[in-house]
Amino acid sequence: MTVYLVGAGPGDPGLITARGLDLIRSCDVLVHDRLVADELVAEAPDNAWVISRDGVDQTALNELLVDYGRAGLDVVRLKGGDPFVFGRGGEEALALAEAGIETEIVPGVSSIAAVPAVAGIPITHRGVSDRVTIASCHGADGSDAEYARLAAIGGTLILFMGLGRVQRVVDGLLAAGLAPETPAAAVSRGTLPDQEVVRTPLRHLATASTGLLGPALLVIGDVAALELGSRLQAERLGEAEAAEPDRASGHRALAAKPA
Amino acid sequence: MTVYLVGAGPGDPGLITARGLDLIRSCDVLVHDRLVADELVAEAPDNAWVISRDGVDQTALNELLVDYGRAGLDVVRLKGGDPFVFGRGGEEALALAEAGIETEIVPGVSSIAAVPAVAGIPITHRGVSDRVTIASCHGADGSDAEYARLAAIGGTLILFMGLGRVQRVVDGLLAAGLAPETPAAAVSRGTLPDQEVVRTPLRHLATASTGLLGPALLVIGDVAALELGSRLQAERLGEAEAAEPDRASGHRALAAKPA
Repeated sequence: MTVYLVGAGPGDPGLITARGLDLIRSCDVLVHDRLVADELVAEAPDNAWVISRDGVDQTALNELLVDYGRAGLDVVRLKGGDPFVFGRGGEEALALAEAGIETEIVPGVSSIAAVPAVAGIPITHRGVSDRVTIASCHGADGSDAEYARLAAIGGTLILFMGLGRVQRVVDGLLAAGLAPETPAAAVSRGTLPDQEVVRTPLRHLATASTGLLGPALLVIGDVAALELGSRLQAERLGEAEAAEPDRASGHRALAAKPA
Repeated sequence: MTVYLVGAGPGDPGLITARGLDLIRSCDVLVHDRLVADELVAEAPDNAWVISRDGVDQTALNELLVDYGRAGLDVVRLKGGDPFVFGRGGEEALALAEAGIETEIVPGVSSIAAVPAVAGIPITHRGVSDRVTIASCHGADGSDAEYARLAAIGGTLILFMGLGRVQRVVDGLLAAGLAPETPAAAVSRGTLPDQEVVRTPLRHLATASTGLLGPALLVIGDVAALELGSRLQAERLGEAEAAEPDRASGHRALAAKPA
């Protein structure tokens, strides 16, 4: 009789935690996001109630979790990524706590590090970046002050946002003083079999990411020039001239071919 | 004949990914960090070679991974947290790529979100913080310019650092203009059974975290006043006066008692 807020990971069903998977396999009720892998939903017991939260607003969802929790059932609330990183898991946990329902958080692999990693980009790297700022850029346009802060912080920027807004964000960051040749990457559908990665100087990022599918994540900063599957691109870090936009796709695209 | 760079998660062995656990169970060689849970190391096959990297420097470790990879063995390099978040996984991946060894990254649950979450702190929360900056503060003291940037970015700050350096960092952030009453938390040994959480205004953070065990992580910003297991503390967010330092311990301390 616990409600478990479980992170499903960034997409690849193998990236759920061992504990999260055990809880799905023994739950009475599974309430899942639309973006969660079908393979994970299929792990619920045959007699469990499986509910997609698609089309259910946050208030109704909170009530539903409280009701099932009150009914003494083991409920798994399975969320894409990590419940607490831009995931509104906090709102669900607060609603449950307020109702006195026993709740446990089972963190997931967050897209913020996993998606760049599987695309071959470490979000920190010794001598390249020791700092990461993650922003949602959901506030429609972002104020000039906001871009000034993001441009000034240094290190790696990771932005979660709709791909339709890339040009606006790039313009804002360039106007705030970020160098046009700053290495950048867009990772579309990271960790999934149809993952695509675009690497380009910041000034070309909007053009280069045209036509990519969501969800996508932008990485801006020197680490975006690192490609762990390829020695060649790592060496680009030292070069002043940025390379042409470069696309790569495929699941686990990181693998280097044996010599 | 692949070298897998696998994230073990933040401490609790249940937080390894399902794929990471499968790979450990079928590997020929397991090379693990000292901080990785014994329960995970014990999952390696009986006939696997199990090697602690304790005392092995990074260059020798890279060579060892390349040698085993060349020998045609399946090697799991098991790292605490996430291999690519302050984990030097990038250096190992580069060394393997340079040697032409097939490599796969299996991301892990990173401490950056999981540790605050299990302590009841969401690193983002609607209406409270839509931005997170993670810094290692390893650069000994941090320059004034660095503190100025960290103090200016807004949103949530997450700092990985030795507990002995907390006072210096607090002084730096206060001098750079961060408000003394900014909510802050220190989470010691997050997700482990002896986890401890200290919450306090920033100005008291060093005093309040005296005697905590490492590894620890600091959370600075309004989200640090949220406690998802308790409605009461969430409401503190609206109050100008900060509460007295408050300690909580215990594994999965988030659970709210049923009414």
